Amino acid sequence: MPQGKNLEGKRIVLASRPVGEPKPSDFRLEEYAVPEPGADQVLLRTIWLSLDPYMRGRMSDGPSYAQPVPVGGVMEAGTVSEVIESNNSGFAKGDIVLSRAGWQTHALSDGKGLSKIDPKLAPISTAIGVLGMPGMTAYTGLLDIGKPQPGETVVVAAASGAVGSAVGQIARIKGARAVGIAGGKDKCDFVKNELGFDDCLDHRDPDLASKLKAACPKGIDVYFENVGGAVFDAVFPLLNPFARVPVCGLIAHYNDTDSKPPKWAGAMMRAILTKRLTFRGFIVSDFAARHGDFLRDMSQWVREGKVKYKEFVTEGLESAPEAFMGLLKGANFGKQLVRVGPDKA
Amino acid sequence: MPQGKNLEGKRIVLASRPVGEPKPSDFRLEEYAVPEPGADQVLLRTIWLSLDPYMRGRMSDGPSYAQPVPVGGVMEAGTVSEVIESNNSGFAKGDIVLSRAGWQTHALSDGKGLSKIDPKLAPISTAIGVLGMPGMTAYTGLLDIGKPQPGETVVVAAASGAVGSAVGQIARIKGARAVGIAGGKDKCDFVKNELGFDDCLDHRDPDLASKLKAACPKGIDVYFENVGGAVFDAVFPLLNPFARVPVCGLIAHYNDTDSKPPKWAGAMMRAILTKRLTFRGFIVSDFAARHGDFLRDMSQWVREGKVKYKEFVTEGLESAPEAFMGLLKGANFGKQLVRVGPDKA
Repeated sequence: MPQGKNLEGKRIVLASRPVGEPKPSDFRLEEYAVPEPGADQVLLRTIWLSLDPYMRGRMSDGPSYAQPVPVGGVMEAGTVSEVIESNNSGFAKGDIVLSRAGWQTHALSDGKGLSKIDPKLAPISTAIGVLGMPGMTAYTGLLDIGKPQPGETVVVAAASGAVGSAVGQIARIKGARAVGIAGGKDKCDFVKNELGFDDCLDHRDPDLASKLKAACPKGIDVYFENVGGAVFDAVFPLLNPFARVPVCGLIAHYNDTDSKPPKWAGAMMRAILTKRLTFRGFIVSDFAARHGDFLRDMSQWVREGKVKYKEFVTEGLESAPEAFMGLLKGANFGKQLVRVGPDKA
Repeated sequence: MPQGKNLEGKRIVLASRPVGEPKPSDFRLEEYAVPEPGADQVLLRTIWLSLDPYMRGRMSDGPSYAQPVPVGGVMEAGTVSEVIESNNSGFAKGDIVLSRAGWQTHALSDGKGLSKIDPKLAPISTAIGVLGMPGMTAYTGLLDIGKPQPGETVVVAAASGAVGSAVGQIARIKGARAVGIAGGKDKCDFVKNELGFDDCLDHRDPDLASKLKAACPKGIDVYFENVGGAVFDAVFPLLNPFARVPVCGLIAHYNDTDSKPPKWAGAMMRAILTKRLTFRGFIVSDFAARHGDFLRDMSQWVREGKVKYKEFVTEGLESAPEAFMGLLKGANFGKQLVRVGPDKA
């Protein structure tokens, strides 16, 4: 692999804002001459690219907590990257870093926002998975908003995914009952047998509502909301008094083009009142102060085998658009990663 | 006023469950022979009866946090009562107590749930008003859920009422900007000029949404929800990132007979997510542990004139149904009380 000057890079830019489901023509692969790092800059080579549902929001220009990617701009993403040139005293050639380099093979950075990854502690891909943003999303949303108590019931969808899998396993560590929801028998078997959830239901099952009720005989105390749609419809009537609903994502609605109210919309405020429910939206950076706690607990749980994780890897930057479109439909089985370049030689 | 044996009492019972707005025939005035207190019992004479919006919920048998009043049963309410006979060593004849005696002139109690009121500290009616359940509802909902910070904007409806008036004044004490919403010019003037809110808008104004926007140039950080309906419609788009919505009541919907979703229902989960909003329902008893703090702070604020209160009194137990029906329409101007009997002789 060539390094240094006169590198040819590849990047994927937002070609157009999707209406509804993103389609291949909303993305464009470009080649570009990788620039030389200037004073205090480092040049990064992408090894792992993280694909996450929130990126669908960045493709639209509706109101959100973050600025959208401009049309023609490089798609945003967290990456695990190698420093291949450094003019910055904080980083040496060969360092492996967590970056937000986006959907591209190379990026410049002034070092701000980069953090070094120690490859001896864990596989470096976990820095954008179970030990990274998705893991910390699960940890903070569940513990700081959901606050599961021993014996309570926690429900989470996308239960074989990066966030959901961690939510259920942490709930179990805290003594709660974990009920997952996932797409298809293979994922459900994995969630129950490998991840140790108490139960897992298929969201495609037309009887989801009655099966969820049977799987939660004492109702639902924490619903970690990352999907919305039919799962929320099934969960809503089962929420117990004082139930907590951390709202982390609504993947079932990210491609919505109409604003038809969901089934229970008209009943929500009344249920919040009469059942004293808590709904609270969050993004992981709201809990930045908890990063040390998260890393300490989660690395220990992973080492002890109490939290397992599954990665779903596609090969090559070019695979990112299709992998991302698949992610929005649940085609991935585990944390969706794109291998953009080889591990450090 | 006769005391002792052979008393004739009056009570108002739920004659039928209302469909939509309660009507006079949903209530029935009954006379009854007041029973003698048994062992360890006290006999109470009602002086002040509190009417509060939550009672509409107790008239229906839908799901709620409390059992409904049975048809034929005495309507529930908090009262300020005098002990007129006592076989209980904890209470002496002449004691003034806070009770849940309901809509009746007399009641027996075994002493459980009664608490003595010291008439020297404050007018005894405040025990069911600013120093009682409505005041504590405002205090805990605002401070423990709303958590207003200096410079933030707090909005509350029914701003001249028992709860709303306290919410805005406590918000001001905490350094926040208080914007009230009330029905009509007289109430709005009172809220601004007497209670010291920064602004107050008329909920009947067809331009409520644009006027609220103008009154909240930096958006809304805390919306203390006690009405729902058109006020919530106006508030919702103005909620700032990280806004908190303590959900205390939905008086605009208590008479609803259909379940048409409110205007913003379809957008609620998405806004919770993207703005990281918190919606949390509560009732005052959820914060029972805060009662000491509440009494300490609120009595001091009332003594110092930082929290003012207004009472709206109707005379005689017989006036309770009409007063209650009026309360649901905002006919009261201040805390709605019924004087059932004279102060202690």
